[in-house]
Amino acid sequence: MMTKNVNAEIIAVGTELLLGQIANTNAQWLSQQMAAHGINVHFHTVVGDNRSRVEETFKNAQKRSDIIVVTGGLGPTEDDLTREAFQSISHLEMTEHVPSMKKIEAFFQNRGLQMTANNRRQARVFKGATVFDNNVGMAPGMMVSYKGRTWIFLPGVPREMKQMFNDHVGAILDKRVGGGTVIKSKVLRFIGIGESRLAYELDDLIRTQRNPTIAPLAQKDGVVIRLTVKEHSISQADMLLEQTKQHILARVGSFYYGTDDETLERKIVSLLKNQNKRIAAAESLTGGGFYQRLTSVPGASQVCLGGIVCYDPEVKTNIVGVSPLTIQSKGTISRECAAEMAVNVCRIMHADIGISFTGIAGTDSVEGKPPGTVYIGICNKEGDKRIEHCTFSGDRETVRQQSVIKGLEMLFNWIKS
Amino acid sequence: MMTKNVNAEIIAVGTELLLGQIANTNAQWLSQQMAAHGINVHFHTVVGDNRSRVEETFKNAQKRSDIIVVTGGLGPTEDDLTREAFQSISHLEMTEHVPSMKKIEAFFQNRGLQMTANNRRQARVFKGATVFDNNVGMAPGMMVSYKGRTWIFLPGVPREMKQMFNDHVGAILDKRVGGGTVIKSKVLRFIGIGESRLAYELDDLIRTQRNPTIAPLAQKDGVVIRLTVKEHSISQADMLLEQTKQHILARVGSFYYGTDDETLERKIVSLLKNQNKRIAAAESLTGGGFYQRLTSVPGASQVCLGGIVCYDPEVKTNIVGVSPLTIQSKGTISRECAAEMAVNVCRIMHADIGISFTGIAGTDSVEGKPPGTVYIGICNKEGDKRIEHCTFSGDRETVRQQSVIKGLEMLFNWIKS
Repeated sequence: MMTKNVNAEIIAVGTELLLGQIANTNAQWLSQQMAAHGINVHFHTVVGDNRSRVEETFKNAQKRSDIIVVTGGLGPTEDDLTREAFQSISHLEMTEHVPSMKKIEAFFQNRGLQMTANNRRQARVFKGATVFDNNVGMAPGMMVSYKGRTWIFLPGVPREMKQMFNDHVGAILDKRVGGGTVIKSKVLRFIGIGESRLAYELDDLIRTQRNPTIAPLAQKDGVVIRLTVKEHSISQADMLLEQTKQHILARVGSFYYGTDDETLERKIVSLLKNQNKRIAAAESLTGGGFYQRLTSVPGASQVCLGGIVCYDPEVKTNIVGVSPLTIQSKGTISRECAAEMAVNVCRIMHADIGISFTGIAGTDSVEGKPPGTVYIGICNKEGDKRIEHCTFSGDRETVRQQSVIKGLEMLFNWIKS
Repeated sequence: MMTKNVNAEIIAVGTELLLGQIANTNAQWLSQQMAAHGINVHFHTVVGDNRSRVEETFKNAQKRSDIIVVTGGLGPTEDDLTREAFQSISHLEMTEHVPSMKKIEAFFQNRGLQMTANNRRQARVFKGATVFDNNVGMAPGMMVSYKGRTWIFLPGVPREMKQMFNDHVGAILDKRVGGGTVIKSKVLRFIGIGESRLAYELDDLIRTQRNPTIAPLAQKDGVVIRLTVKEHSISQADMLLEQTKQHILARVGSFYYGTDDETLERKIVSLLKNQNKRIAAAESLTGGGFYQRLTSVPGASQVCLGGIVCYDPEVKTNIVGVSPLTIQSKGTISRECAAEMAVNVCRIMHADIGISFTGIAGTDSVEGKPPGTVYIGICNKEGDKRIEHCTFSGDRETVRQQSVIKGLEMLFNWIKS
């Protein structure tokens, strides 16, 4: 059933990694992707911005690995020497990649900045390489074959690296590995249920089922289950994945919101579109973070009217119209304040649904309430409403993030039925 | 002035790292410690639980590094083969470490469990090794000299590894290095200047200065320069760092905003506090992202009043009070709309400073303008204002993030003088 094993290694170039300023999360992410494509990763190496040590590392890799993925060292400065080091060991010719050069020039032109000469280096590629556009930053990536090995060069900035991998490299690897064995994964996404409860509900499946395997994994915003199947054909793989998905949803389907890349905010925007409903938010402790997240979805403008960030108590009364009596008697961090915020912002913005966040993120207590005390309100223009009192733990940013996620969960539950 | 340069490498043994199940945070932490002890780290390697590949990795390390720190592979299972691999390459004799064996036996006795034979493996150490007690788990660590190299074996569990390093290894390294050497870093942060321009302005310094070294690094929100100095004493190190910082600021100081952990939003909140000024925002394409970021700073409530997220054009007119005529003649994505948004939100919220964001993040064009077209306005209550027309490239989220960062840059420049 297996095709020839394809072995890879991942090399990160950058002194900042050797100084411990950042962790090599690129290697972790790339390893996950390689596994999903059925490729064994045998080594990770980190090497600093030092020409001879980078060359030594490249030589070792050329000896022992079919695929070598290199991250970092493609930028414009003296320290960026990945290209030069690979040229030294391969003697491949280099050339200027005209589209990339045009893009770099346009970048500087658009900003009215003068382009310095070292920026040209970023557009240099090996002759015959497959060049990967950089949609996020400037330096392109590339893939080049050399003496039976496949070398893939990607930027070190995680966002640029991931986008380039997703846009170009994944498909190439699938071809490279060739037919025969198919490894496919499906990710099921849940909100409102913890990892341990999910693992408990699916305990027998997780322990006994081997194809697909079932792996729950806690994430910042909910829990996911990763199904991984190994099969002869895509259709067989898809069938097994779908079967297992249905088994799982029969038990915990009420917490399920989407598959693979689906996000909770995308699901919500899509539900709101279908229902032709528009939403407004009044945010205090989250400072705009809820609406920022909702509007990250392309097409959000069809359902997102706007919101009021009422950080200061006076803005809660003057702009959102929370009654000063409410604030006097119950405080700004109260069920009553959250309710008025949601109802009023819904009315002010002529929305169908209003949502509100008030609470204390930290670091200090407010109105005698400890950090982590949060009220979230949700209402519709017909007058139904629901307020939740939450107690989050963690630092300021954690409390704010958890508040946003809880708001998304409440909104999803409010509109899904 | 220098003691002999001591070069180290860090090897992690564990297939879970190659599958991407965890990131190699051990290497990051150990690198920070090594730097603090004046030791250069030249390589990180991750290798799986595979005997021949671990041996290959150890052989490479023996050739090139003075100190080799190995984490993981010391446990009781079949997969734990660090000891055996090192024995294969070194032919050093092994022996049972009696205190560790007693501890392991006691562990099982205390819990009424039967100890399986494989647990004995954990107490095996090389003859002549310095053994490190494990105060958190079971397997001891050790240090052993072999043909002029120092090998340090530590557990893979971060808690055990760190405690063992702190209790034993640090002091040994200081002796090994001969004390005296101090490595210190300082990070200088800049906004409004690109990495290549910064590198260009400092070109001669970067190329010629060796102590401290000067390394520019692009980040999502600006550029940093990392200075790293190696000296006999902390006071001497600090002096050289400060001297170089002053040289650099003499050239590019107008783009500098802070050192080390300082963030732009923290710097801004602190400046606003000192000036006793309060700020309001009207955000369209950023959806609340600017205010969310500003309010991430503890104590932001002293300077952050609130904002209006005016995603929908009607909210721009009805709530923010942008003139319908402006929108009709100039569109919502215009200098004029940005100006009215900033001025109006400043007035509505009784703020000292108003800031506004309007534009098109993507994925489609709006009002005939392509994604990436953004206007950012800033004003004070005295009536001064400044509007910038920006052209960003990248996907929807990149445009939104760049807008927020540009807004922070404009605000910083507005208030810093």
